[in-house]
Amino acid sequence: MSHSYSTLDWSVSDHVLTLTLNRPEQMNAFTVEMCNELIHAFDRASADDDVRAIIVTGAGKAFCAGMDLSKEGNVFGLDESQQPTLSDLNKRFSDKDIVEGVRDTGGRVALAIFRCTKPVIAAINGAAVGIGATMTCAMDIRLACEHTRIGFVFSKVGIVPEACSSWFLPRIVGISKALEWTMTADIFKADEAKDAGFVSKVVPADELLQEARRLAASIAQRSAVSVAMIRQMMYRNSAMTHPAEAHKIESLGMFYTSLKDGKEGVASFLEKRPSDFQGRVSTDMPDVYPWWDDVESSD
Amino acid sequence: MSHSYSTLDWSVSDHVLTLTLNRPEQMNAFTVEMCNELIHAFDRASADDDVRAIIVTGAGKAFCAGMDLSKEGNVFGLDESQQPTLSDLNKRFSDKDIVEGVRDTGGRVALAIFRCTKPVIAAINGAAVGIGATMTCAMDIRLACEHTRIGFVFSKVGIVPEACSSWFLPRIVGISKALEWTMTADIFKADEAKDAGFVSKVVPADELLQEARRLAASIAQRSAVSVAMIRQMMYRNSAMTHPAEAHKIESLGMFYTSLKDGKEGVASFLEKRPSDFQGRVSTDMPDVYPWWDDVESSD
Amino acid sequence: MSHSYSTLDWSVSDHVLTLTLNRPEQMNAFTVEMCNELIHAFDRASADDDVRAIIVTGAGKAFCAGMDLSKEGNVFGLDESQQPTLSDLNKRFSDKDIVEGVRDTGGRVALAIFRCTKPVIAAINGAAVGIGATMTCAMDIRLACEHTRIGFVFSKVGIVPEACSSWFLPRIVGISKALEWTMTADIFKADEAKDAGFVSKVVPADELLQEARRLAASIAQRSAVSVAMIRQMMYRNSAMTHPAEAHKIESLGMFYTSLKDGKEGVASFLEKRPSDFQGRVSTDMPDVYPWWDDVESSD
Repeated sequence: MSHSYSTLDWSVSDHVLTLTLNRPEQMNAFTVEMCNELIHAFDRASADDDVRAIIVTGAGKAFCAGMDLSKEGNVFGLDESQQPTLSDLNKRFSDKDIVEGVRDTGGRVALAIFRCTKPVIAAINGAAVGIGATMTCAMDIRLACEHTRIGFVFSKVGIVPEACSSWFLPRIVGISKALEWTMTADIFKADEAKDAGFVSKVVPADELLQEARRLAASIAQRSAVSVAMIRQMMYRNSAMTHPAEAHKIESLGMFYTSLKDGKEGVASFLEKRPSDFQGRVSTDMPDVYPWWDDVESSD
Repeated sequence: MSHSYSTLDWSVSDHVLTLTLNRPEQMNAFTVEMCNELIHAFDRASADDDVRAIIVTGAGKAFCAGMDLSKEGNVFGLDESQQPTLSDLNKRFSDKDIVEGVRDTGGRVALAIFRCTKPVIAAINGAAVGIGATMTCAMDIRLACEHTRIGFVFSKVGIVPEACSSWFLPRIVGISKALEWTMTADIFKADEAKDAGFVSKVVPADELLQEARRLAASIAQRSAVSVAMIRQMMYRNSAMTHPAEAHKIESLGMFYTSLKDGKEGVASFLEKRPSDFQGRVSTDMPDVYPWWDDVESSD
Repeated sequence: MSHSYSTLDWSVSDHVLTLTLNRPEQMNAFTVEMCNELIHAFDRASADDDVRAIIVTGAGKAFCAGMDLSKEGNVFGLDESQQPTLSDLNKRFSDKDIVEGVRDTGGRVALAIFRCTKPVIAAINGAAVGIGATMTCAMDIRLACEHTRIGFVFSKVGIVPEACSSWFLPRIVGISKALEWTMTADIFKADEAKDAGFVSKVVPADELLQEARRLAASIAQRSAVSVAMIRQMMYRNSAMTHPAEAHKIESLGMFYTSLKDGKEGVASFLEKRPSDFQGRVSTDMPDVYPWWDDVESSD
């Protein structure tokens, strides 16, 4: 807990980390500093066995009102004359110049969430606009309240959706709703988000964090190794072209977990007592994990 | 506007093109001529900067009652003895013999819609059956009314769904609903379509075109370059196996749009005035576009 | 009908096979024997032209209460010291040691369902937990009743979801609901399943089989060749990265079916009489089928 952040609040209780976007006077507007602190926090939570679930919410009235436009000029390190190409990104994905000069800050956060070993729940307490909306797409479950306002406003500002939302959003709500929301750039409320399956539940504002904690606690009591495997299996295996690819990972996942937390799980079930899983994400992931080649050092 | 069609009506107003399937006495049944005219119209709209959104609807009572069976014998140019193979199609995808002799006419239209740079909204005013149903799957957003009847009737006629619907439909409504609708071949109404997320909204028949125009207008006022990028990003990036692939395209999309329409977008936002985007799809697409290899010359 | 099963009941009526998981005193708990019998039954139904649709349900009060934990020690043939790797599975996917020693039994059943030429409807009459839940994900359509209880309880037992559910489930309900259900491991009822699109319909318990039969009969009257093509087209084509891949298969599917069942389909439509499709799955599949390379001998 020695690390401190200037744009975030980090608070762990009962194995649940609450990460609060903490620039309330700027409606938690996103900055390069917030990007770097979020990446640090998700990687830290990923490695910390004491953290078993993560809630992300906003301080004050907003969740996150988008990119801090007063600092917009600083987002890209390269200037117009340098003209980066897709080939540059493919070849030098982790180079400092590319990372700081071209790569979308929201996408770097989304990839940190993607590689995280812990479940991530967004408690969208108010306005979630631009990067405030897209960053939640990379989170696993979203909750809303009557103050929630969501807007994929990029086409209204003359830019494009980011934070890997063109990968995540269609997987959550289907391709047509993803297109409608991003092409119209309209702001919508919790009910429309719930109707499309974007949020799992809509609750009164004063119960939102409580509901997020209840959900986080229900996952935190499960096998942490199982949960870490499930996150990666669902996202990665569902993107394969044939179910046999999922079958291979699942088979090995089942083989190895059956020898560890699975033994306790079956024993506790047969003995009708609460389970006491000893598996730690830091040391006890199945031998098949990770089953992918790294895209970047920490991905 | 010099080109005229015999199966379609082309009408542009306030940057919105309304394409009306116009064989009302045949319930707008689909013919090879309609196929070729639709491809022409979508490619033309794609290149025309004056068109910023497209509505497709049907003249008279039906949207499109399916393939014109009175002309069914003409659909395939090859006869039984020629036995085309998948290898033929892979090697000679754009050959005249293959294009006219083997390739599904509905699929050729769907690919023209797929490569289109403008959003496409289906206003399903009545029966949409067979190709009348599947062609709407390649469109971005569907609207329905109380007269809407949708039927993926292929298994009832002893054939298979087409118009790339085996790619599009599961992306819209999920794999199970796609299987149910296509295997049963049953006709269903607007409410079932809405419940599954196939249509975005159900409105009274006499408000259908008005609602489509409202939706089209809301997109037409956005950055045309952003909208063209969004269409391709959502469809193509979501089909990748890893979010980092989306991240690369989004990063470059953001880099380049930030230098053009994005400057106006931010300035107009900060100055609290309407934006005046100058970017044109014909000349101002970001350098990363297109980021794919062509499947066919115009794809 | 000469083959008999000890864990299943096989019953064909009006071209509809009802496969009943038949260990009611063990709540139809899944065993290695049930796995092997299910694979046999699906492959048998796939090859039997008399079977045109399949219903899977459970005898007694449960659908399937999960793996039979009293026999859990027998699930994996290998012991801890043998440490199978992904490379082993990739190289020796069909080796007896790997099949019996490592490969998930539920996944082997899911792949048998996946390759099946007949539609598969799950009538979830009661508890469907663990493999009881995941095996239904590989089925095409699910129906529920007021007794239905569904639970992806793997993280509660310290193991991981299987039966290729990390491939199927996100395709049915979207990635976020798939993550929520599998990470929380909570049991949920028919209404939540319906709301997420996991089940197509909820009916009273005493009408469940009747509703499944009605649905099966509506598919059984269609062209069997069309239905077999549709199943493979929807699952496989939607997993491709570009709609042109679907277009190729659809074009050839259309070409070949137009010469056979399609002729009868059009003729019966024009003559306003019921169609009489002669195409048999065993002998009349279009020349393009199968268009994939086998993963295993029977996949």
